[in-house]
Amino acid sequence: MSETLGFIGLGNMGEPIAANLLQAGYTLRVYNRTASKAAQLAAKGATVVPRPEDVAVAGGIVLTMLADDQAIEGVCLPAGSFVERLGSGGVHVSISTIAPASARRLAEHHAKYKVAYVATPVFGRPEAAAAKRLWICTSGDATARKRVMPILAAIGQGTFEFGDDPGAANVVKLCGNFMIASAIEALAEALTLAEKNGVNKKDVAELFGKTLFACPVYQGYGKQISEEKFLPAGFRLALGLKDISLALQTAASSSVPMPLASLLRDRWMTAVAKGRADMDWTAVALGVAEDAGLKPVAANTNEGK
Amino acid sequence: MSETLGFIGLGNMGEPIAANLLQAGYTLRVYNRTASKAAQLAAKGATVVPRPEDVAVAGGIVLTMLADDQAIEGVCLPAGSFVERLGSGGVHVSISTIAPASARRLAEHHAKYKVAYVATPVFGRPEAAAAKRLWICTSGDATARKRVMPILAAIGQGTFEFGDDPGAANVVKLCGNFMIASAIEALAEALTLAEKNGVNKKDVAELFGKTLFACPVYQGYGKQISEEKFLPAGFRLALGLKDISLALQTAASSSVPMPLASLLRDRWMTAVAKGRADMDWTAVALGVAEDAGLKPVAANTNEGK
Amino acid sequence: MSETLGFIGLGNMGEPIAANLLQAGYTLRVYNRTASKAAQLAAKGATVVPRPEDVAVAGGIVLTMLADDQAIEGVCLPAGSFVERLGSGGVHVSISTIAPASARRLAEHHAKYKVAYVATPVFGRPEAAAAKRLWICTSGDATARKRVMPILAAIGQGTFEFGDDPGAANVVKLCGNFMIASAIEALAEALTLAEKNGVNKKDVAELFGKTLFACPVYQGYGKQISEEKFLPAGFRLALGLKDISLALQTAASSSVPMPLASLLRDRWMTAVAKGRADMDWTAVALGVAEDAGLKPVAANTNEGK
Amino acid sequence: MSETLGFIGLGNMGEPIAANLLQAGYTLRVYNRTASKAAQLAAKGATVVPRPEDVAVAGGIVLTMLADDQAIEGVCLPAGSFVERLGSGGVHVSISTIAPASARRLAEHHAKYKVAYVATPVFGRPEAAAAKRLWICTSGDATARKRVMPILAAIGQGTFEFGDDPGAANVVKLCGNFMIASAIEALAEALTLAEKNGVNKKDVAELFGKTLFACPVYQGYGKQISEEKFLPAGFRLALGLKDISLALQTAASSSVPMPLASLLRDRWMTAVAKGRADMDWTAVALGVAEDAGLKPVAANTNEGK
Repeated sequence: MSETLGFIGLGNMGEPIAANLLQAGYTLRVYNRTASKAAQLAAKGATVVPRPEDVAVAGGIVLTMLADDQAIEGVCLPAGSFVERLGSGGVHVSISTIAPASARRLAEHHAKYKVAYVATPVFGRPEAAAAKRLWICTSGDATARKRVMPILAAIGQGTFEFGDDPGAANVVKLCGNFMIASAIEALAEALTLAEKNGVNKKDVAELFGKTLFACPVYQGYGKQISEEKFLPAGFRLALGLKDISLALQTAASSSVPMPLASLLRDRWMTAVAKGRADMDWTAVALGVAEDAGLKPVAANTNEGK
Repeated sequence: MSETLGFIGLGNMGEPIAANLLQAGYTLRVYNRTASKAAQLAAKGATVVPRPEDVAVAGGIVLTMLADDQAIEGVCLPAGSFVERLGSGGVHVSISTIAPASARRLAEHHAKYKVAYVATPVFGRPEAAAAKRLWICTSGDATARKRVMPILAAIGQGTFEFGDDPGAANVVKLCGNFMIASAIEALAEALTLAEKNGVNKKDVAELFGKTLFACPVYQGYGKQISEEKFLPAGFRLALGLKDISLALQTAASSSVPMPLASLLRDRWMTAVAKGRADMDWTAVALGVAEDAGLKPVAANTNEGK
Repeated sequence: MSETLGFIGLGNMGEPIAANLLQAGYTLRVYNRTASKAAQLAAKGATVVPRPEDVAVAGGIVLTMLADDQAIEGVCLPAGSFVERLGSGGVHVSISTIAPASARRLAEHHAKYKVAYVATPVFGRPEAAAAKRLWICTSGDATARKRVMPILAAIGQGTFEFGDDPGAANVVKLCGNFMIASAIEALAEALTLAEKNGVNKKDVAELFGKTLFACPVYQGYGKQISEEKFLPAGFRLALGLKDISLALQTAASSSVPMPLASLLRDRWMTAVAKGRADMDWTAVALGVAEDAGLKPVAANTNEGK
Repeated sequence: MSETLGFIGLGNMGEPIAANLLQAGYTLRVYNRTASKAAQLAAKGATVVPRPEDVAVAGGIVLTMLADDQAIEGVCLPAGSFVERLGSGGVHVSISTIAPASARRLAEHHAKYKVAYVATPVFGRPEAAAAKRLWICTSGDATARKRVMPILAAIGQGTFEFGDDPGAANVVKLCGNFMIASAIEALAEALTLAEKNGVNKKDVAELFGKTLFACPVYQGYGKQISEEKFLPAGFRLALGLKDISLALQTAASSSVPMPLASLLRDRWMTAVAKGRADMDWTAVALGVAEDAGLKPVAANTNEGK
């Protein structure tokens, strides 16, 4: 259990994931662009290194939890990157939500160095990460996947495998975020309809959360939207737009019209244009209410923060 | 417990509901347009009457489970209707999904005869009705609502109250059906994206049904859509279009733009235009797949049936 | 040329149309709910009558220019209406934009009195009506249509015939208003795109009005939208919503999904919900700009008026 | 008038444009990837060169008419490109429809070689190009623009200037193509509504082309759609999807939600997924008709070609 893992990216999600790996007994070499964020992990026993490539040991495993396609390519593609350092037998476990096409390109790139790329996007907010309650999708090289399963078991409550295509897990992840965003839109429209017809929207959200939609997405988001509580952001609205756009981009390259995803993209883009990029992504509900002529209080108190 | 109830409308939903009332010990006077459908209930002890108005006893309770606004108005508004027969102290328990505006109009009509209108739309398919597992929304006159609560307890697993406005419960019901239809569209688009990207859509549906969307709507519909099983119809596609249209009509009269509901209406209307009115309402997924250039087998085998 | 015509409805459109009939030499018996509006026509030689039915002479022709389906039914259906007075050989020339289904119902109703219903919806604003520059669509009983052609020639610049179905002309009229609304939405989106990319939107509107879209609709509306001039209303936004809704209702009853019409309905409804019902219907462009984060000046100066 | 111009790209549009330049007295050095297509121009006096960079003379002018952003970058960015050959005082006149952002990037690139980039996207099909009836939008370096005005006068019927931003002209071009696509969708929905209501759609298209929409776009496309004539392609459906996608991409980077453009993208993508990429872009009307349950003959005869 004292295997050494590299870990790059200690943001809201990366930090608790790395902490759980330490707690599970792994030895960790960590890097973060903002060094201060690594201090807490150092106190728990992680070795902080000065450059991303320094996290890697030959033939070892490196996990990355970075913001987007560009950030991952930024640490993977330059000469002397951690991928080269890993070399033959190495494994890159990539946790971020990125385009399936990017994942496939990275896998091809890594193959030149005999490094396997394993996609492991996760579902769950920072609290879920801290509580080891992430749901994990994985795909990529079968041998490497088998090797990393115990690691995934240490950070989540369940892992679902989607075969050898390194892009597959991210397809599923984009499907999931699209479906969550769809649920947010549906809740926002339904609760606005209720409100303008004199029905208490908190009661409506509660009813559905207890019955037809007794599942985390509807319970949590139904509560947030009906209580108009959009700050602090559990998941930033701007990141939601990024994920919906990735889904549409993936859909376009496989000729899949997704009119609901198009509608969501416009809804999210409107919210960004109105200055709500840093609010929780449920704040799109403000736009739904405004379009119905309501003047939600949260629109004023939250804006511009 | 031997109170006498009237019951009009013994279709797929009405028959099991009436049977549960008999089983709970109520005395039932029943009417159905197609008399043969009442025979089974007669065998269980119900009294079958020849005309709808004959189900009523003065000051009693009549439940109706009819197809739509027109059908209800057809039995309520003519001279000599069951409403007149009920007279002072009577209660009309209306289970159908109708426009909130129609419910309010009926309540006004009934008031002339000192009859209370209690709206009690339900969530659940015929199997759920048979198993007393319906979820019930109710609103209307408070005294009458209190009186009918034991009756509702005999046919469902829970009742949610939405105050004195006779239209309120139907607003909530329309919100619910709109949200279910939204979930169907989201599932259909996501699973089509998965399929065209080489990911097994049954695995994807299963993942979401076990994790983020571990609730009946996503589990049941996710399975149906991913297995392309659209017959027999649990809920007819044409009825789904009716309910989405009612939601939009209610939204229009309160100036609530619901772009997702508009999208759903067009999707459902396309399915009806393509001859799928009698398939299960998840069959809209066929259109999603066709728009992506797929030729789902179920489209051919089911059509026109 | 001294034939006597009845005319009901002297609003913004009806008054100039009636004036042109007088000028063409017809004898006119006119009625308007607000009597004062008839005074001007009286000065020009029209006979003002106290009740709508009084405009009719046996076997004659009555034109109506009323606000909507309800208004027309209100003067046609009651016992003793002008339709009964017309009687055998009479013709009702109905200029309003109404549902094709309503037109067909009226034709059936009139047939009982041997009165022909000729639908003659028109394209053009009040200025066009005054200048005899309306475009007229007509359909209905062939003999009656032939009889009224000279009348139509006196009020418009051209008449297009669409056969015997009394609903047909209104189908075409709804197509036209839908297409105009589509052009407004397209202009609004395009000009907002230009503006946020630093391109002068007046130049863009002018370019298209001179080239690809050198026709009245794009020239006029392009100018209004690019100059953000939404008052006074040439055509009230609320009436636009009525017509788009009529188109969608007609489409629904013939199972024609019209996603663009659905989008327009939501756009127009948003504008009404934001208090812009009485602005010109091009004011939907304010919503397009607001959704892009712009704060158009016209939104503040015009609102609530 | 015997100035030497370089010309790269002799496709359906490039060939007639180049021919008009020859006819206007310019000396032409031309390059096309498929050499055979240059033969016709050679016969008219053009000098055919073996590599794209060979069209350039120091300080001269090169026009390009290439398929997309990638094609242009492919001839501009490599070392030794025509841009380097042009050098100080040179001008690149870029006729293609590309992303405004690409135009700006190219202008920056060219500046390193003291070459000016002038954007000159055009409106018009090949017949219009042959007849010198193109409408031209232009923007970019003011001095260079002034220099190329006579050239533009030789190939079009009018040029509209949009200032110094090299991206501006393409913003306008994308606005235009978006507006044309919107008109196609509006026509298709309106004519389907007419058809399913028993109204002759050719008559409807003719009416609008003569009245409200008496302009080339509606006349030409209205005729094509109402006659269901989608082959041969005047403008390939796949190119239409490219342009709508470029408009949406430009809109996204400036936070402009364009729901109508989103709708068009899905409509066009559906047509591509159904195998209609090579039909005329009006063939999206087939999908509109199919969604309404019609089985247009053109769908079968044309598909797969």
